[in-house]
Amino acid sequence: MPSLHLLQNLPAPGPEEHFEEILKRPGVRLERIVSDGQVSPPGFWYQQNYDEWVVVLQGAGHLEYDNGNIDILAPGDAVLIPAGRRHRVAYTEPRTVWLALHFDAPDSAPQLA
Amino acid sequence: MPSLHLLQNLPAPGPEEHFEEILKRPGVRLERIVSDGQVSPPGFWYQQNYDEWVVVLQGAGHLEYDNGNIDILAPGDAVLIPAGRRHRVAYTEPRTVWLALHFDAPDSAPQLA
Repeated sequence: MPSLHLLQNLPAPGPEEHFEEILKRPGVRLERIVSDGQVSPPGFWYQQNYDEWVVVLQGAGHLEYDNGNIDILAPGDAVLIPAGRRHRVAYTEPRTVWLALHFDAPDSAPQLA
Repeated sequence: MPSLHLLQNLPAPGPEEHFEEILKRPGVRLERIVSDGQVSPPGFWYQQNYDEWVVVLQGAGHLEYDNGNIDILAPGDAVLIPAGRRHRVAYTEPRTVWLALHFDAPDSAPQLA
């Protein structure tokens, strides 16, 4: 089967994070993100229309929310970021690998037959 | 945010694997599987109607296919098992943790608006 080694042959560290789509299906898009110390600009907030679920596979990352809460994510730690929730990446360790599941449809959408 | 520590507080090893649904959305279901040496019975093959994507987070697992191929999965290794592909779990290390994405809809299904 076509296998993928998510922790091997990582793209070289650079000024930007690396985003790579792994697969896309109706309702969902799976992405690998490789971070090397990048953080969101001060005062910048992501605010997405749809839920996102992320898990750290390697390294560490801190997600900050606009209520001041911070999620400190180590390998195996996952968080669901609900649609509309303002958040930013406050910290990443070099060679941090995330998996992100982007749900393209709201939770209330009808199940596909 | 509600966070989940996929590698902590694992269920105690027992005779059966542990399956836990993490979330379910239109088109996709995300599951954590904890294996402790369990394998598929000899001669048993899984054959699913829809694609499944799995990644090993911890431990190791071997997936065998009916053409004799074996995928040896270490942490970070992922594989897409296409619908209809006969496969079985040929080996698992104690305390192996998998993430499985089950796609409830065929790849050709229309994208949700």
